Amino acid sequence: MADSGESQMKIVNGEAGYVLEDVPHLTDHIPDLPTYPNPLQDNPAYSAVRQYFVNVDDTVAQKIVVHKDGPRGTHFRRAGPRQKVYFESDEVHACIVTCGGLCPGLNTVIREIVCGLYHMYGVTKVLGIDGGYRGFYSKNTISLTPKFVNDIHKRGGTILGTSRGGHDTSKIVDSIQDRGINQVYIIGGDGTQKGAAVIYEEIQRRELKVAVAGIPKTIDNDIPVIDKSFGFDTAVEEAQRAINAAHVEAESTENGIGVVKLMGRYSGFIAMYATLASRDVDCCLIPESPFYLEGQGGLFEFIEKRLKENGHMVIVIAEGAGQDLLSKSLESMDQQDASGNKLLQDVGLWMSQRIKDHFSKEQKMNITLKYIDPTYMIRAIPSNASDNVYCTLLAHSAVHGAMAGYTGFTVGPVNADHREAEQGSNY
Amino acid sequence: MADSGESQMKIVNGEAGYVLEDVPHLTDHIPDLPTYPNPLQDNPAYSAVRQYFVNVDDTVAQKIVVHKDGPRGTHFRRAGPRQKVYFESDEVHACIVTCGGLCPGLNTVIREIVCGLYHMYGVTKVLGIDGGYRGFYSKNTISLTPKFVNDIHKRGGTILGTSRGGHDTSKIVDSIQDRGINQVYIIGGDGTQKGAAVIYEEIQRRELKVAVAGIPKTIDNDIPVIDKSFGFDTAVEEAQRAINAAHVEAESTENGIGVVKLMGRYSGFIAMYATLASRDVDCCLIPESPFYLEGQGGLFEFIEKRLKENGHMVIVIAEGAGQDLLSKSLESMDQQDASGNKLLQDVGLWMSQRIKDHFSKEQKMNITLKYIDPTYMIRAIPSNASDNVYCTLLAHSAVHGAMAGYTGFTVGPVNADHREAEQGSNY
Amino acid sequence: MADSGESQMKIVNGEAGYVLEDVPHLTDHIPDLPTYPNPLQDNPAYSAVRQYFVNVDDTVAQKIVVHKDGPRGTHFRRAGPRQKVYFESDEVHACIVTCGGLCPGLNTVIREIVCGLYHMYGVTKVLGIDGGYRGFYSKNTISLTPKFVNDIHKRGGTILGTSRGGHDTSKIVDSIQDRGINQVYIIGGDGTQKGAAVIYEEIQRRELKVAVAGIPKTIDNDIPVIDKSFGFDTAVEEAQRAINAAHVEAESTENGIGVVKLMGRYSGFIAMYATLASRDVDCCLIPESPFYLEGQGGLFEFIEKRLKENGHMVIVIAEGAGQDLLSKSLESMDQQDASGNKLLQDVGLWMSQRIKDHFSKEQKMNITLKYIDPTYMIRAIPSNASDNVYCTLLAHSAVHGAMAGYTGFTVGPVNADHREAEQGSNY
Amino acid sequence: MADSGESQMKIVNGEAGYVLEDVPHLTDHIPDLPTYPNPLQDNPAYSAVRQYFVNVDDTVAQKIVVHKDGPRGTHFRRAGPRQKVYFESDEVHACIVTCGGLCPGLNTVIREIVCGLYHMYGVTKVLGIDGGYRGFYSKNTISLTPKFVNDIHKRGGTILGTSRGGHDTSKIVDSIQDRGINQVYIIGGDGTQKGAAVIYEEIQRRELKVAVAGIPKTIDNDIPVIDKSFGFDTAVEEAQRAINAAHVEAESTENGIGVVKLMGRYSGFIAMYATLASRDVDCCLIPESPFYLEGQGGLFEFIEKRLKENGHMVIVIAEGAGQDLLSKSLESMDQQDASGNKLLQDVGLWMSQRIKDHFSKEQKMNITLKYIDPTYMIRAIPSNASDNVYCTLLAHSAVHGAMAGYTGFTVGPVNADHREAEQGSNY
Repeated sequence: MADSGESQMKIVNGEAGYVLEDVPHLTDHIPDLPTYPNPLQDNPAYSAVRQYFVNVDDTVAQKIVVHKDGPRGTHFRRAGPRQKVYFESDEVHACIVTCGGLCPGLNTVIREIVCGLYHMYGVTKVLGIDGGYRGFYSKNTISLTPKFVNDIHKRGGTILGTSRGGHDTSKIVDSIQDRGINQVYIIGGDGTQKGAAVIYEEIQRRELKVAVAGIPKTIDNDIPVIDKSFGFDTAVEEAQRAINAAHVEAESTENGIGVVKLMGRYSGFIAMYATLASRDVDCCLIPESPFYLEGQGGLFEFIEKRLKENGHMVIVIAEGAGQDLLSKSLESMDQQDASGNKLLQDVGLWMSQRIKDHFSKEQKMNITLKYIDPTYMIRAIPSNASDNVYCTLLAHSAVHGAMAGYTGFTVGPVNADHREAEQGSNY
Repeated sequence: MADSGESQMKIVNGEAGYVLEDVPHLTDHIPDLPTYPNPLQDNPAYSAVRQYFVNVDDTVAQKIVVHKDGPRGTHFRRAGPRQKVYFESDEVHACIVTCGGLCPGLNTVIREIVCGLYHMYGVTKVLGIDGGYRGFYSKNTISLTPKFVNDIHKRGGTILGTSRGGHDTSKIVDSIQDRGINQVYIIGGDGTQKGAAVIYEEIQRRELKVAVAGIPKTIDNDIPVIDKSFGFDTAVEEAQRAINAAHVEAESTENGIGVVKLMGRYSGFIAMYATLASRDVDCCLIPESPFYLEGQGGLFEFIEKRLKENGHMVIVIAEGAGQDLLSKSLESMDQQDASGNKLLQDVGLWMSQRIKDHFSKEQKMNITLKYIDPTYMIRAIPSNASDNVYCTLLAHSAVHGAMAGYTGFTVGPVNADHREAEQGSNY
Repeated sequence: MADSGESQMKIVNGEAGYVLEDVPHLTDHIPDLPTYPNPLQDNPAYSAVRQYFVNVDDTVAQKIVVHKDGPRGTHFRRAGPRQKVYFESDEVHACIVTCGGLCPGLNTVIREIVCGLYHMYGVTKVLGIDGGYRGFYSKNTISLTPKFVNDIHKRGGTILGTSRGGHDTSKIVDSIQDRGINQVYIIGGDGTQKGAAVIYEEIQRRELKVAVAGIPKTIDNDIPVIDKSFGFDTAVEEAQRAINAAHVEAESTENGIGVVKLMGRYSGFIAMYATLASRDVDCCLIPESPFYLEGQGGLFEFIEKRLKENGHMVIVIAEGAGQDLLSKSLESMDQQDASGNKLLQDVGLWMSQRIKDHFSKEQKMNITLKYIDPTYMIRAIPSNASDNVYCTLLAHSAVHGAMAGYTGFTVGPVNADHREAEQGSNY
Repeated sequence: MADSGESQMKIVNGEAGYVLEDVPHLTDHIPDLPTYPNPLQDNPAYSAVRQYFVNVDDTVAQKIVVHKDGPRGTHFRRAGPRQKVYFESDEVHACIVTCGGLCPGLNTVIREIVCGLYHMYGVTKVLGIDGGYRGFYSKNTISLTPKFVNDIHKRGGTILGTSRGGHDTSKIVDSIQDRGINQVYIIGGDGTQKGAAVIYEEIQRRELKVAVAGIPKTIDNDIPVIDKSFGFDTAVEEAQRAINAAHVEAESTENGIGVVKLMGRYSGFIAMYATLASRDVDCCLIPESPFYLEGQGGLFEFIEKRLKENGHMVIVIAEGAGQDLLSKSLESMDQQDASGNKLLQDVGLWMSQRIKDHFSKEQKMNITLKYIDPTYMIRAIPSNASDNVYCTLLAHSAVHGAMAGYTGFTVGPVNADHREAEQGSNY
């Protein structure tokens, strides 16, 4: 892993510039593990599966736009059921943990790990870790059965509870060892997956037969390599409500401005897609693209121009946009009022205040600005149909990977197929 | 009118304590106006209507819970089509104006005044006044036909635009006189209806044959006498999304608190109904019911109790609740930071900050609070089915009243029937 | 009761034509029952209630449109908490049963009977009868606690299950007696409430201290006297989707016709309200208003006229409309094909076929007809916010009534207030 | 084209088994056409585009699962803006036509062809052909401007109207020639695109400078090669309502069966995805997978088993499933009742009747079956956010392709990138 310096990136090279970034396996640190035939072979409900076992040589290309004579480029290992597995059904003792902020689809991923393990591999022992990483050592666990999780995908949030931080590697691995857990499914964002990589390394160091599988969660969709993260589609859909409201408010008054803040600390994916989908937005501000407020080419000039042309306008701003402007501005303000300053650290509130100040004081132009922050209303809803299908594939890919003995990996779709990637390396 | 001291409340007394609060009529200031048979009589589509003409003696009781031997109490004139009208179809020149903030159903009311006048009374000349009261003298008007308004009820906002204030009585009545307008439909809240009462008085003074009809708009539902205002049902429905999100966020973390601010400056109707409908809310704070934060019986104590019992909680707060606490608190704060203080005048933001401060600093209890303000997302949506039916009845009642020569009145349902009430007197 | 000839309608007459149709009481057949103070008086959460106890003399007027000198008319007993109750908290053993077809809000009514009994009266013993009337003697019961019913109002259907028929009076009353049940809450339509009246009579005959309370369910809203039935608002809202789809389909082709069938065997309330709310419907056919297909003034003529004027049209038909035409038509058809005939008994399918046949064969006019039957998609959804509030009031009214010793009654709103009415007499 | 035998498939071969299936170009039949710089280069709003022009050598791989030593396989030409275009802005006279059944997103595609041509290429002359192919010669056209199409993506259906058939090649090409149209955008399914291929050939024969671009529409998602068709996501989402209703109805009665029919004449994609997304479905019947009703391993046996295990079940059936069983069954029935037979050709109605008959007559098991056909309610809704983004990319790809002189092609995403493919060849 690049970050910790301890990772052994497994690189395989092939003809015509073909590169495979491979995934760690339990046999890397415990040689001579026995294998078993995949129980899917004998499952009448999956009778068609035998022919669909993933060939051990299948890989997925990172880039699909290629030139006739160009190099073939980077590839990843394909996800899916394997002919041989490294766990017997009644030997598996899995656990699931969710960390970080809410995101549509968490419950679907939980449900499908439980149901996937049960229906495909006959696994009955699955524990839910309550309240994020710290739940490993400070809370009771929840026993997860197909019946218990049957309807949870129709609810937002996570039935396991979540928290930030709370990562104490040795306490967590102690707890895994004490409980006899041998498959750990970790659902969370960037920081969480870095934590997962450290857990994987400690497990490797202790030479335990424990597979660690990460399911990347980031509603911002800011994960490199993979196509999109779960919950993204649902978030873009739900964001339309806020943009519509901003548009209606703006249209109904003279010089009406609607401002909508959307998720995205380091990336403007949700803001951009929501803007593209809506087609009612005049201006979309994202972290990737710096801007300034005053003077020629500045935001105020653009706002004035649009209001004169069109009578109203809608601005979408990603929460991470304009952070440089914001911090400069707060520094120059009176430091005494802690509460006020805290509120202004919200870029949407700050930007709205700046626009109002500009047009009322300096510009003598009568505007009406309405600010909408739908963040929690977006991230707390249940996942839509498209994300439900996607979460199911993600969860099943993680299950197939762990059963096949892969570890220290995260799953994700590349070019609409699913692949396994070494954990941590993408972050 | 109580407020202006000029109104002649028309009171009629009857047997057993029966009181009728009657409505002004064009013939009060212009005697000897000719009448015409209601054109609905000859309209094949309304062939059943003849038998449904409102009897001139029909009145609606204000109170419906009565005692066997108690007085009969206050009554209002019933709304609906009358046998005789005071305008010929091709003589009518109507105008419609919308004032104040947005509210679901504005476009439905506009549509149904236009379509009601056209289909029931054969009226073709209807003007839309653009941008609220000031549109009478500072803007172009819009010609409103059934075709033009055909689909507007499926959109939120108001196609006429709106604004606050801008009320210059003599300029407005000049404009009405200059354009030859003889029916004025005014859709707006408390302040707007007071303005309408003043316009009516000026028209009466000038002895013009102009009927002034008010359609009360107040999403807060804080109008005395009438059952509910249009848009209320839609607002309560839409508020469920915010409450659900707050509940999911709160449930997903330890000591999670979800706070939702809803509309209601002087009344907590929306907050209360949304709370009743949701059944996920632990505490609903409304303007009608004072409260305090600290000490025994205070809000902080209640929050701590609920968190200990249940692990999470949801608070709904009407925007007008706790204003006394808020102003005291802001006074004691540093006055220099204008922006920060301005933000804190939002009771939801202020309250959230106070709860966070209390539990982090004073209480050493680790809470996670999520604040949601869905106001604009609620008021900008189109009206739901129930409000569409209601807006239609309101608009048609106003049209029937104006055609029958009533003026200076507002329409509204009393005990699920519709009545006309003298304008201004309710406010 | 009119139907059975055994009912003693309790009529009280007053001054000025005042009539009270009163409700049976346990003391009618068991004199000298002890009373207890209402526990709400000591409940801190209901400290404001004491002043809101319903005065024993409160009654609700059936008609609210009245004349100055007319008679005061029929009144009903007002629903709500009474100062004295006839059951001690730990004495109550309640049961709930749902019968007939699905309707939005069933789960909310169940939830609120359970929570109302628990939170207001401290009642902990509530049984759910599984699968309708026959569940009294052929199925296991379900123990209903506030925790168990906490989220059920967010789901459609009924958690108790339902069925039609299965009414064996003496078996049911035996089961009530055997289990020691003393409050029976029966949620169902016309037939179900007739069954409830018979159960009440049998209980009266056996001189049991058992209160029978009916909550009328009829999505059609075809109950006389009361304003509207629960689920109606939700149904009208959901029906808009089907009408919108029919409208879009019709608009997109030349001579496009969209036909939507809605619930309403004996009344066209849903069809009419959905039509009023949508404003996209050209023609609404209801059971109350007969019509014919062919010749002058017939439906085919009207369709042809609308298509020529407007290019497309939307028809809404209540399931009970045109039943006379339908039965005549089926008689004249070939009787051999049972399946085909069975399908054609659906008035929407039959009507659509007749329109297609008319225009293709007889009229040589090229039409495209799309038929939509959203019935199950409407009745299986959860209740909306407005119905949730309404179901809560209904359930609590039933609880207050039963606790106060009333029996053989149904609850329902009259002119937006709630009243108790003698059971069976309205049906 | 494989079908007509006239097509010259343009195949280019490369190293390591690389194959390019190329697209026809105007210069194939009109050599020496002048080119112009792409106006996007000078457009300040697209200042970033210059670096994003598609390299003429960019191609997209059909398969992304590859083996290290396997052949590289088939590739398509990449869609996107080119440095050189073959039309000047004021020379372009485009037209758009929509054919076949409704599908969510039609209006978004229309909007984005109009807005794409206008904002990216400065094209102002765009005609809408009214009512499908026959609109070319039998109807008036509609002038399409960005203002006119501004809000149409929020409505279902197609503002251009649609029809089936009506394809008279020479009349259509005459009309194109007479009106001076030089870009033809054709939105429609399989049959429509075959028609487009024939139009392209006739244009080629007449040596006209007219680019023909196809946008494939098929809600069934049954187009080979491309990832998914527009409207598919929306359809799967909306299908959840019907499945939920079926599930609630089934759950609420003893031996309840919910049957939902979904679109898909030749493919079960919608049925399968809707089933995967819902996770409440017990059995999904699709055209790709034959089944039988009676005996061991038959559907009736499976139903009986599920009812005994679980008490209720949900079946999803694609409209094209079981067609062999259906036709055999209808043959054996009485032929006289035309209406009945016609109705029974609906596989959902027929299957429901068969299940009812089996369990009532033969099996003596009391079932309650509810059948839901949401087809028109699904296809008439507006597209969701994800489809809006997708329709925009499709429309812009078609515009870029036509401007760059490609013709006789259809656009579509391959592995989440967009490519152009020769028209007709995929069908």
